[in-house]
Amino acid sequence: MENLFFGVDYYPEHWPRERWETDAALMEEMGLSVVRLAEFSWAKMEPNLGEFHFEWLQEAIEILGKHGIKTVLGTPTAAPPAWIMEETPEIYPVDSNGIRRGFGGRHHDCQSNKTYRSHIKRFVTAMATTFKDNPYVIGWQIDNELGNSHHDLCMCDSCKSAFQDWLKEKYGSIGVLNKEWGTYFWSQDYASFEQIPAPRRTVTGSNPSAMLDWKRFCSDLIVEFQQYQIDIIRDICKSHFITHNFMGFADKVNYFDLAKNLDFISHDQYPGGFFTTPPHEKNEVLSAALDLMRGTKNQSFWIMEQQSGITGWETMGRTPEPGQLALWAQHTIAHGADTIVFFRFRTCTVGTEQYWHGILPHSGKPGRRFRELKDMIAKLKPIMPELKGTMPKAETGIVYSYDQNYAFQIQPHHPELNYVEQVVKYYKGFYERNIPVDFVSDKEEFHKYKLLVAPLQYLMNPELEKKYDEYVAQGGHLVLTMRTGVKNDNNVCMSEMELPGRLGTIAGIEINDYDCLVGCNTEVLWIKSNKLEPMKAEKWCDIIELKGASVLAEYSSQFYKGSPAITEYSYGKGKVYYVGHEPDHRLMQIFNEYITGNAGINLLPTTPDGVEITLRSAEAIDYVFVMNHNNFSVKVNLPKEWEAVFTGQNSELKPFQVDIYKAKITV
Amino acid sequence: MENLFFGVDYYPEHWPRERWETDAALMEEMGLSVVRLAEFSWAKMEPNLGEFHFEWLQEAIEILGKHGIKTVLGTPTAAPPAWIMEETPEIYPVDSNGIRRGFGGRHHDCQSNKTYRSHIKRFVTAMATTFKDNPYVIGWQIDNELGNSHHDLCMCDSCKSAFQDWLKEKYGSIGVLNKEWGTYFWSQDYASFEQIPAPRRTVTGSNPSAMLDWKRFCSDLIVEFQQYQIDIIRDICKSHFITHNFMGFADKVNYFDLAKNLDFISHDQYPGGFFTTPPHEKNEVLSAALDLMRGTKNQSFWIMEQQSGITGWETMGRTPEPGQLALWAQHTIAHGADTIVFFRFRTCTVGTEQYWHGILPHSGKPGRRFRELKDMIAKLKPIMPELKGTMPKAETGIVYSYDQNYAFQIQPHHPELNYVEQVVKYYKGFYERNIPVDFVSDKEEFHKYKLLVAPLQYLMNPELEKKYDEYVAQGGHLVLTMRTGVKNDNNVCMSEMELPGRLGTIAGIEINDYDCLVGCNTEVLWIKSNKLEPMKAEKWCDIIELKGASVLAEYSSQFYKGSPAITEYSYGKGKVYYVGHEPDHRLMQIFNEYITGNAGINLLPTTPDGVEITLRSAEAIDYVFVMNHNNFSVKVNLPKEWEAVFTGQNSELKPFQVDIYKAKITV
Amino acid sequence: MENLFFGVDYYPEHWPRERWETDAALMEEMGLSVVRLAEFSWAKMEPNLGEFHFEWLQEAIEILGKHGIKTVLGTPTAAPPAWIMEETPEIYPVDSNGIRRGFGGRHHDCQSNKTYRSHIKRFVTAMATTFKDNPYVIGWQIDNELGNSHHDLCMCDSCKSAFQDWLKEKYGSIGVLNKEWGTYFWSQDYASFEQIPAPRRTVTGSNPSAMLDWKRFCSDLIVEFQQYQIDIIRDICKSHFITHNFMGFADKVNYFDLAKNLDFISHDQYPGGFFTTPPHEKNEVLSAALDLMRGTKNQSFWIMEQQSGITGWETMGRTPEPGQLALWAQHTIAHGADTIVFFRFRTCTVGTEQYWHGILPHSGKPGRRFRELKDMIAKLKPIMPELKGTMPKAETGIVYSYDQNYAFQIQPHHPELNYVEQVVKYYKGFYERNIPVDFVSDKEEFHKYKLLVAPLQYLMNPELEKKYDEYVAQGGHLVLTMRTGVKNDNNVCMSEMELPGRLGTIAGIEINDYDCLVGCNTEVLWIKSNKLEPMKAEKWCDIIELKGASVLAEYSSQFYKGSPAITEYSYGKGKVYYVGHEPDHRLMQIFNEYITGNAGINLLPTTPDGVEITLRSAEAIDYVFVMNHNNFSVKVNLPKEWEAVFTGQNSELKPFQVDIYKAKITV
Repeated sequence: MENLFFGVDYYPEHWPRERWETDAALMEEMGLSVVRLAEFSWAKMEPNLGEFHFEWLQEAIEILGKHGIKTVLGTPTAAPPAWIMEETPEIYPVDSNGIRRGFGGRHHDCQSNKTYRSHIKRFVTAMATTFKDNPYVIGWQIDNELGNSHHDLCMCDSCKSAFQDWLKEKYGSIGVLNKEWGTYFWSQDYASFEQIPAPRRTVTGSNPSAMLDWKRFCSDLIVEFQQYQIDIIRDICKSHFITHNFMGFADKVNYFDLAKNLDFISHDQYPGGFFTTPPHEKNEVLSAALDLMRGTKNQSFWIMEQQSGITGWETMGRTPEPGQLALWAQHTIAHGADTIVFFRFRTCTVGTEQYWHGILPHSGKPGRRFRELKDMIAKLKPIMPELKGTMPKAETGIVYSYDQNYAFQIQPHHPELNYVEQVVKYYKGFYERNIPVDFVSDKEEFHKYKLLVAPLQYLMNPELEKKYDEYVAQGGHLVLTMRTGVKNDNNVCMSEMELPGRLGTIAGIEINDYDCLVGCNTEVLWIKSNKLEPMKAEKWCDIIELKGASVLAEYSSQFYKGSPAITEYSYGKGKVYYVGHEPDHRLMQIFNEYITGNAGINLLPTTPDGVEITLRSAEAIDYVFVMNHNNFSVKVNLPKEWEAVFTGQNSELKPFQVDIYKAKITV
Repeated sequence: MENLFFGVDYYPEHWPRERWETDAALMEEMGLSVVRLAEFSWAKMEPNLGEFHFEWLQEAIEILGKHGIKTVLGTPTAAPPAWIMEETPEIYPVDSNGIRRGFGGRHHDCQSNKTYRSHIKRFVTAMATTFKDNPYVIGWQIDNELGNSHHDLCMCDSCKSAFQDWLKEKYGSIGVLNKEWGTYFWSQDYASFEQIPAPRRTVTGSNPSAMLDWKRFCSDLIVEFQQYQIDIIRDICKSHFITHNFMGFADKVNYFDLAKNLDFISHDQYPGGFFTTPPHEKNEVLSAALDLMRGTKNQSFWIMEQQSGITGWETMGRTPEPGQLALWAQHTIAHGADTIVFFRFRTCTVGTEQYWHGILPHSGKPGRRFRELKDMIAKLKPIMPELKGTMPKAETGIVYSYDQNYAFQIQPHHPELNYVEQVVKYYKGFYERNIPVDFVSDKEEFHKYKLLVAPLQYLMNPELEKKYDEYVAQGGHLVLTMRTGVKNDNNVCMSEMELPGRLGTIAGIEINDYDCLVGCNTEVLWIKSNKLEPMKAEKWCDIIELKGASVLAEYSSQFYKGSPAITEYSYGKGKVYYVGHEPDHRLMQIFNEYITGNAGINLLPTTPDGVEITLRSAEAIDYVFVMNHNNFSVKVNLPKEWEAVFTGQNSELKPFQVDIYKAKITV
Repeated sequence: MENLFFGVDYYPEHWPRERWETDAALMEEMGLSVVRLAEFSWAKMEPNLGEFHFEWLQEAIEILGKHGIKTVLGTPTAAPPAWIMEETPEIYPVDSNGIRRGFGGRHHDCQSNKTYRSHIKRFVTAMATTFKDNPYVIGWQIDNELGNSHHDLCMCDSCKSAFQDWLKEKYGSIGVLNKEWGTYFWSQDYASFEQIPAPRRTVTGSNPSAMLDWKRFCSDLIVEFQQYQIDIIRDICKSHFITHNFMGFADKVNYFDLAKNLDFISHDQYPGGFFTTPPHEKNEVLSAALDLMRGTKNQSFWIMEQQSGITGWETMGRTPEPGQLALWAQHTIAHGADTIVFFRFRTCTVGTEQYWHGILPHSGKPGRRFRELKDMIAKLKPIMPELKGTMPKAETGIVYSYDQNYAFQIQPHHPELNYVEQVVKYYKGFYERNIPVDFVSDKEEFHKYKLLVAPLQYLMNPELEKKYDEYVAQGGHLVLTMRTGVKNDNNVCMSEMELPGRLGTIAGIEINDYDCLVGCNTEVLWIKSNKLEPMKAEKWCDIIELKGASVLAEYSSQFYKGSPAITEYSYGKGKVYYVGHEPDHRLMQIFNEYITGNAGINLLPTTPDGVEITLRSAEAIDYVFVMNHNNFSVKVNLPKEWEAVFTGQNSELKPFQVDIYKAKITV
């Protein structure tokens, strides 16, 4: 693919025809070379069944093309038009209360509905055929942010039936399902797959095994929904790439699965958040999300929507400070993005997203944001070809699993226990010390990592146990945590052994008792090196019995005072650490220092709070990014031999400043 | 109309026939001369279709009449009886989830339903005909508190269809609607009006233009529902007045519109609140509500329900302290009420409102409340005829708009930004300094005001811009605020100019950037007069560029530190102030002092906290009310020349004391 | 019935056949002699209509029986199988929004549904017939925790119709109902019983009289649902007992009524709570719940489910500390339990209750909990036969009423006023001083109590007034409180007299005014004995006028400062105290000391915080339980003459230690 480093999401249909030329010229002035178009404009392209109007889109593509801007087309299937919905209201999704949602937003589509599929078939075929040979069109985005907004959707009859088919496929016979789900509990035995409901609201309680399968089914349905469109487009547009815009830690769909048949994945990066965290997401969460995105395909990626102003719908977030938008964009490059497409070029004057601000304000007059990003692009563009496709040298992996996440959503144990938050806590231990991390699926190879952190390995199976065993036996250092080995893959508690099941052998421990820390914490002492400052175990305490392991930290309150809190065990050529609780921040720091030291993890320079160093490695050289996330200046102390890409080495970073160096890192 | 100053809401049908005489005698003893009757008693008057029983009501009216008490009749259409609902369950309203509500409360009526209208036609015709010549009946209240309880109601098929008709009427063609709503966003184009939904719950998001039209439609439906009954009664009862009981800052219906065809408006005043603010509403909110009520028709008004004891349904509020009920009643007079009808005479022993206390307790034995109000009435009655119809001399107006309120309900910007609260913040600036204020519709004439505060002029149109321009050009002082000129009347963002649009010319400023203060405030300094105490901008900051204006206050934190926070600009013969944020209390005080000084607003004496002075002006003389809202005594310093209406001038006010003076105020 | 003191809830169908023998042996080792079986296993026993499979259950019963373990069978009607629900979806309950709940939990049954009744008839008949002569089967539990999870259920057409029948039965004619409910309020008159709805969600408000009857109907429906099964079983299994497992302060069903036709009641005791109070319920609440359970039939009882580990579904509670499970079990014995059945033997590996921990962990390997309970059983077993059937000697009664509770649920007055909490506040006054208390239905005889506390006697009728009058006249000491005598039994306010109605005569007071303390408290002084420390009245203040009574405490703030807060009045041979508010903790202590002193209540020794003394009285001797609820050691000072049952007298109690003494108490 040609070099396309910066772009925007653009909606020519939102603006008068006479403005298009102006917009294209401004884009060119900014240094943009790619746009995403049309991903929400079905009604404009097919106002009535079979009456196609692609001419406006072709015209826009050509105007942009003449300004050196290539087009990625979105299939508009996240917003079926009113005439489809009027004809087939069964397409509206149904929620867990059995209430059918209405028209007026987006994502109002049941993804299993057969009639909707036939509309997609007709439309996407026509669109792909129209644009397959357009010289400016280079690729496709399927739908938009699949999984978004479908939290407790869809539980309609079509989805129920699709779920039943999915279960048939998985279990073969209803007898096997009854056994695996343990339906003997509360008399829930099914005589046939047709009796199995979508998990609408019950009087009380639900079956955790059924819920886990439902969540997997919902993910698989989305993957299959995407594949349905991939198949159409691949067949017609042989030379175009296909991608989809992911959403970081969103979890309705398993992104490892969704990534599989895409040429590359894209990601929507909004540090300003989706109405959640004022004023913006924490730095380690932003970095972790990008590393996860890279990990879904273990490959560099696109940002298909990069924040370009205040985010907001009914309410808004803080305005990005001067320099902050540019920092956020470079931050995504530092973590593996090859192309940054800003959302959106000009702030929309109508509809739900009037206050999801673009580069240009409502008035269309270039202002602070335009200038800032234009300057950033001018600075970065020369280095982008060298960076393209490079990846960090991570010696450390964190195992990430959608199934584990689902299982903890179904049964959080502690009211505040959250899988992603706990994973990010471990990530932060590395992040604060500028240690590159990969997120790894448990289906992937572990051996390339010196150190592997596998938090909350709650669902367990013999193959995965064997992988961990072999990883350690051959020299890997593995961190296991509380709630490891509790259940089988169908969310049923193991009953053959004490916790953590067969992994007890490689951890050198056994757990016969535990405490859920509702409304309290337990004190912990790091006894390994006589650091006697009291720290805290949060949410949960495994009460550990040693079966060969030695003690790094112990509980110093509660009735299990004096019993091990963190253990270390040498197994084969490697080591296993077991953390029987959720450590607080200080304990995580001490633990991280200890395990990275043991594993021989090479270190980048340390930096003050809010300054992050990361790298992308080409064959001959590493590109080191030094980023000041703070809105004040800070001093840094970098190796003299690092060669500044832009200017001389800076010992002081201005607010939101990013420097890039060429270096040969021994990591 | 004859002089009727005090009355009660009375329910003879709730008590044994033999008690009616006793009640009438007690009312006469209290000095009451008017009752409202029957507004919830449809089933008693028509127990079966066409079987009318008005005889009990006629008898009650006569008994009361013989005690010198006139009757206002309420049409009982806020509580259709069970036999209507059983026959036509489609009359039950449907909520945004599509759930049809049931029997057992009140307001269970869809106001667009055609069958319900025919029931109203039949019943109201019969009732009006029955009472048109009754010598004791003087007027009518239509329904009860229209808009109350209908928060997300009604979204039934009938209302959907009525909404579609309303839109047809407004836009003429579906093409115009599509353009004005910007339905190109998210592919929401409609092929016909019949495709447009009532805004039931979507999967996610909604169109702000559609939502605004929905809210206007709901208001118009209520106005038309009232008009339907007005037409019937006007036709039959030529000599009777027609009114309706409003609810202060309630906003389901635009009260300016609802007031239009009424002879006068009435208001229900419950300082004890509707289950909201313990122990009772703030004084400035109570006063502002009364001033808004007066402003809806720019005319003195009735209180149709005045609090007479603890308010409550399932839970209750505080008991009024001795003297407080009398204060509250006189407070409404001070703000323009001519007649006070207390709700209710005797506390009901049955039903939802068992604990919405009347003057008499459940036992019917006159007690503290009876004595207190009787004394107050005896004191006030002599002065009431002089006060009747008089109005305050307000030199200051605050522009009040239901449309602006709706627009901020749809998109509050900041999670805590509330149109009414911000309006009341400006009102409080005047209230604390005893400066009379009118609330003014933006359809009204502005020129009579020296000073006009127009908060949050978010929706804007050329006519209104012109009105503001002319008002200032001809010498008016105008206060504009943050979020002025953002949108057109259809809730679409302006795109031709920077903010605040064409009003930038009269304000001498331009706004290219802004900040939503989620989770923080910005510091502000009033630099005009070197008051360097730090104050706070809340919720929002416009980052203002001067185009001729001078700076009164500037931001002193955030990246826009040093940029203007409040500006002043001379335009034509007048002045425009622009406040780019929501000021905190102290800043509002300083700002208020500055602008009233500039505008030459005449001042009443200042008073301690909780003591309010207001006035009603007759041609020759002003009636000044001095009211102590506190439950402790306070000293006041009043002009010696003020002539006490009741006794000599008091330099100390007892708890809840109200004094009235005759004076000639130069305001 | 033979001596069966300890048992477990056991689910052989959850475990492999080959494990049953092991489990039975472990139970025998623990000293268990009874199991409850099969209460959720309908589908296993009748997988298709009329196809019965009891053979597995017979086999399990026999294996257990051979280990000396008897069986109580549960009817599995709390979980109708999928094949019934598929055939008759009308059995799924409908909530107040009209939404029908789905399959996948439990309690998904409408208890009025006729088809469901016919399924119950067929199944229970078959089950009873099968086991009537089984030598190991001794009795039955009907259904499971009746009322549980049915909070706003069921409002289906069948229940509506059953409610209408219930009302017909109660009122005879619709005219009487209209009068009693006061349907003249808001025009709610009904022409026929068929018009009366189940109280689904209205637009706003509801009729308190209708709501109270609905709650009574729901209770009666459950009682009748239980009776339906009792009748079947009594007819077939002549020699078996019938019980049901109650849930302490749960209130969907009136437990006095539910207890009536049972041989004895059972209770499920979970100090760890049902997902509510971390880390576990307060001691006085636990004790009060047990005393209420004993009071429902005035008879000793079984614990059918006694906590045996962490409780939890999606989230979990704290783990019981070493010794705490044993304490909790002995605590139930101290309050009147004859038999303790632990829930459950082994933690389930599947389904909703995977984390509702049993004695054995998931692994089935006996651990800390097994050993602790085994030791406790060994210790207690010798004394159990002597304790069986004994009851405490309570000189004090607290009147407990489901109707009063319902009435306050419908109208809580103050947002935080809760009937059960206020009752427990009075209970706690006694509890802290180790004074035994009975909970008494207002249908029961009062004369056996020296002192009777009747909190919140809100609903009142002439018979009950007469009972109170006679009780006092003949020498009883009675405590009445705020909100006494407000309403008649149909939730209609009394209108003949001032509060507290006719009971004013025996209390020597009258109340003409009151205050609801929203957002504040009122200060109170105990003036009787010059204890001038300021204490607090919470939530409500009656403003009391003395009609002969003397003052114990007075309000010392608010406008009613100086007026009586607590009064005392001698009436006949007895005394009436009236408490016009909810006293704070300190005031309750002082008041309790005063009234118990006056009543001549005999005292057990006082003990430090967390140490409880209670007793069960046999004819010749009393068994005194001294229990340390603390997780630390405490010293106690006991009468030397008390004879220790286990070892010598302990002046220091270890954490969670329980000692039992034989003594002759003069209480």
